[in-house]
Amino acid sequence: MFTYQTTIKLHDTDAAGLLFFSNQFTIMHDSYEALLGKLRFPFASLIRKKDYFLPIVHAESDYRSSLFVGDRLSVGVTVEHLGITSFTLAYTIKKDKRRIVGVGKTIHVAIDKKSHTKIPLPDNLRRALRRFS
Amino acid sequence: MFTYQTTIKLHDTDAAGLLFFSNQFTIMHDSYEALLGKLRFPFASLIRKKDYFLPIVHAESDYRSSLFVGDRLSVGVTVEHLGITSFTLAYTIKKDKRRIVGVGKTIHVAIDKKSHTKIPLPDNLRRALRRFS
Amino acid sequence: MFTYQTTIKLHDTDAAGLLFFSNQFTIMHDSYEALLGKLRFPFASLIRKKDYFLPIVHAESDYRSSLFVGDRLSVGVTVEHLGITSFTLAYTIKKDKRRIVGVGKTIHVAIDKKSHTKIPLPDNLRRALRRFS
Amino acid sequence: MFTYQTTIKLHDTDAAGLLFFSNQFTIMHDSYEALLGKLRFPFASLIRKKDYFLPIVHAESDYRSSLFVGDRLSVGVTVEHLGITSFTLAYTIKKDKRRIVGVGKTIHVAIDKKSHTKIPLPDNLRRALRRFS
Repeated sequence: MFTYQTTIKLHDTDAAGLLFFSNQFTIMHDSYEALLGKLRFPFASLIRKKDYFLPIVHAESDYRSSLFVGDRLSVGVTVEHLGITSFTLAYTIKKDKRRIVGVGKTIHVAIDKKSHTKIPLPDNLRRALRRFS
Repeated sequence: MFTYQTTIKLHDTDAAGLLFFSNQFTIMHDSYEALLGKLRFPFASLIRKKDYFLPIVHAESDYRSSLFVGDRLSVGVTVEHLGITSFTLAYTIKKDKRRIVGVGKTIHVAIDKKSHTKIPLPDNLRRALRRFS
Repeated sequence: MFTYQTTIKLHDTDAAGLLFFSNQFTIMHDSYEALLGKLRFPFASLIRKKDYFLPIVHAESDYRSSLFVGDRLSVGVTVEHLGITSFTLAYTIKKDKRRIVGVGKTIHVAIDKKSHTKIPLPDNLRRALRRFS
Repeated sequence: MFTYQTTIKLHDTDAAGLLFFSNQFTIMHDSYEALLGKLRFPFASLIRKKDYFLPIVHAESDYRSSLFVGDRLSVGVTVEHLGITSFTLAYTIKKDKRRIVGVGKTIHVAIDKKSHTKIPLPDNLRRALRRFS
């Protein structure tokens, strides 16, 4: 499992005093970017150099506990499903490396940049993702 | 059905050129705030004056189409489920009032501000939400 | 003077209960995007079709009053300075169309997309901006 | 000088392909939160336990270079001015610890939470901030 560490910043919170719910998704994406970097598919080259995109077609989150500015989170990411043209990432968010405070999921589809149609996951990406499945 | 209008701003997009996926959730929440305002439960008084919170315990989104800066969206919101202590909102996002570009859902639970435990939805809130169910 | 209307959303605030300071800049940019739209230079075509960028090289804000979720703002925008290769926008943010709650400024430079060097402001943009100077 | 390390995330960028200008301010604030944590004034206790706020009354940034997703930044923070009721922080943002890509400033005022009026900077905070002046 890949693990990403972060801390809740003031800008992640809202006037109700806690993490704004959209920002759990943003933290999940931050950990996905770190995972891709680890797999040598840095986001910068994905956007600038590759001939495909990996847009998210579905995302979901459950919130089990209130989170406050300064809370230290570790996000575990696994590849839950590797399909022909898509993959699913599952996220488990813990506070202080112990208590699960949230879980989530994102589904990504490989899209050709030119034709804007689905394509099979490139082989090298598939092999890389398999490391965390 | 309650409808909220908005336009994709540059800050809603990312370097892939399109709406960043978390921001679909933020737009859904903006429409929820507008709906509560319409029902005379403005968020400001919810946060400052009420003795309960309505935190989100689950959120999900599907993305059916790429969205770009300047796209005009209308978000239809309905109360899909009214439970004892919770309610579910369903969102349908259209571009130019025609094509559905995304859908989503949020589940909210009533929590007592003092005891931090679940409570039945306050009667006046329940009656108000029923208008859009 | 061009005027843009908006409402503070929950996601604009932070756990201190008020508008997060960066988001005053975001609101200023939203009003700049609306002004460009009004001048028939929509941001989408600026990014996708024009051969120049207008990046911000300096930004500043003063904060005169606390702002809360639900506050209704009107942002007045004027072109304070029109230089050879740059322009300066000045923003005045009022609450309920009366009290000034914040002011700000952004300086934009015209940059050629290919050479990445400064270029004179295109004539049609200069003429358009002059309407609000 | 206090130094904070971070990486540009996809959500920090916009459809022009680069860091969205407001997010330089957010990154500056993230480094200020880290500095306060280092000084044993964690933001969480500032918001929840102290009898004063430190709102920003002025902020400014200069942008010297384009920043892209994945860029590694180090933010140097110094206390540029320690006044009676206010302090000024200066930020220097470097890419790969070498080239200065942006600079900025924030001015903070001590405000009593009850009376909402300016107060002298608390002595322990003043002493702590002096370490980075």
